[in-house]
Amino acid sequence: MRPVCVLGLGLIGGSVLKAATRAGWEAFGASHEPVTDPRVEPTVTAALARAARSDALVVVAVPLPAVDDVLREVAAHAPDCLLTDVVSVKQPVADAVAKRLPNARYAGGHPMAGKSASGWDAAEESLFDGAAWVVTTDEDVPRDAWRAAAELALACGAEVVPTTTREHDAAVARISHLPHILAAVLASTGADGGSLALSLAAGSFRDGTRVMTTRPELVLAMCEGNRGPLLAAVDEALGRLGAARGALASTGGLAATVRAGHDGRQQLEDLRGADREEFPIDLTDPEAFETLRDLGTAGGRLLRLEGDTAIGALPA
Amino acid sequence: MRPVCVLGLGLIGGSVLKAATRAGWEAFGASHEPVTDPRVEPTVTAALARAARSDALVVVAVPLPAVDDVLREVAAHAPDCLLTDVVSVKQPVADAVAKRLPNARYAGGHPMAGKSASGWDAAEESLFDGAAWVVTTDEDVPRDAWRAAAELALACGAEVVPTTTREHDAAVARISHLPHILAAVLASTGADGGSLALSLAAGSFRDGTRVMTTRPELVLAMCEGNRGPLLAAVDEALGRLGAARGALASTGGLAATVRAGHDGRQQLEDLRGADREEFPIDLTDPEAFETLRDLGTAGGRLLRLEGDTAIGALPA
Repeated sequence: MRPVCVLGLGLIGGSVLKAATRAGWEAFGASHEPVTDPRVEPTVTAALARAARSDALVVVAVPLPAVDDVLREVAAHAPDCLLTDVVSVKQPVADAVAKRLPNARYAGGHPMAGKSASGWDAAEESLFDGAAWVVTTDEDVPRDAWRAAAELALACGAEVVPTTTREHDAAVARISHLPHILAAVLASTGADGGSLALSLAAGSFRDGTRVMTTRPELVLAMCEGNRGPLLAAVDEALGRLGAARGALASTGGLAATVRAGHDGRQQLEDLRGADREEFPIDLTDPEAFETLRDLGTAGGRLLRLEGDTAIGALPA
Repeated sequence: MRPVCVLGLGLIGGSVLKAATRAGWEAFGASHEPVTDPRVEPTVTAALARAARSDALVVVAVPLPAVDDVLREVAAHAPDCLLTDVVSVKQPVADAVAKRLPNARYAGGHPMAGKSASGWDAAEESLFDGAAWVVTTDEDVPRDAWRAAAELALACGAEVVPTTTREHDAAVARISHLPHILAAVLASTGADGGSLALSLAAGSFRDGTRVMTTRPELVLAMCEGNRGPLLAAVDEALGRLGAARGALASTGGLAATVRAGHDGRQQLEDLRGADREEFPIDLTDPEAFETLRDLGTAGGRLLRLEGDTAIGALPA
């Protein structure tokens, strides 16, 4: 089994290291924050030297603003290793890889799991169990890098969602970054009501603002890094909120808004609750990546790899 | 102890009945939905006749659109009973009471607790434990009705937040009704991303849309009933979201939005985590209601009643 070298040991990187260890992988890493653990090398340089010696899969697990610096180190010390990342936006990472390591064998990754607490101590080996983990499946992604990233995701307990860089960034703008912006708007508007309003705040306000307990720097790195797709999602939300405003002011009726929201949430429940049909995908097929992308678009995931066959699952 | 007669036995009314029973009160009620329970009278008319005989406190616990019909029945069968309600908006209920029972001894109530499930079977005797329960403390509220409503809230395990009808409606627009509108907008925008987006949806989307699992009729009754204050809150949210949009489009920076959101949520945590100082309020003081309202405005609550003294608690 190929070792894994995780650069950045916050909540996500730390959880990757712990989950890969649980799966029996040789896993090591490095962090700018001090972490005392036998798997942690004293410096990023030392970790990368070990990665180069052992032909490890290198995982970039720092917030987006720090990615470029880390990639420079990778280019200097382990340029030939297979490379992936777990950063929440994919196009800027792909661009940075193309700039710093134009010959890298790289597939992007993004595990869709998290919690409000951050840092190594918050990291858990079970964080990704059953979660979606995107592996970018653009046509030009090297097959060996794709395979290594998918194997890591599966070893960490996740299910692989194959999709393109562009589709990933558009989707997460809607379901991960927009929720943070709306939570910020809600928290500000609630707090503007003063102590009385906050004293009355119950479940709906607490749930709707929970992600605002996350460190602002992390939220900013994520949201600002996905500027174009997030702008489109915010515009769509502005349109819907404006329509609700207009309906409330004119007829007083909010049925269209509330029923569409209820239906949207119900679609999520239906997708989660659906029986899934498993089927094999031959990875040696020249059109395998197209099949994989279609699976992702349809809400499907990969459950495991068996030799040259990927086992996909599609909601019935 | 005065008996309590609960009209409407959904999640909130049912929980009031169960919580009052737990506190040792004689509690009975009626519901349009069939409920099999020894405390439930066969009809609203029968329940009100019993309330009139036993001089019970009558609690209106139906959704706002049904309030007027229930008040007609109260006017016909128990016009002299003390009256309160647990409806989520206060001005429309006060208006309906003024119309149907102009001489009623009425104080409005609103327990700030709930969950997505609805109906008698979802009702819990512990639903209100530690929750805020608004009792309207406008200057013209009859003192005996106020006292009865406050006693019920405390008996149900809640803490009383004294405030005016107007301040209540403005506050809940921000922290209860706006969260539902933003959740609807988020759920719709997420679902518009198709199966891929919903497959990737994790905690931030689930939390941000949870209230959309509530029955749409209940959300509509609540939000549409608070039209004016909700319009103001939606306008504030539109302004903030528009500012975020502008910042993202121009400089790409979201720091002002995210930091304000983080601060707002932190204010909620600070209020909840604060030590509280207890002090007595003499309810026979002619200015007691003013003192009570000031307590509510400052985020304070009443913890208990001891004869003519209310024990207030204010975050330090």
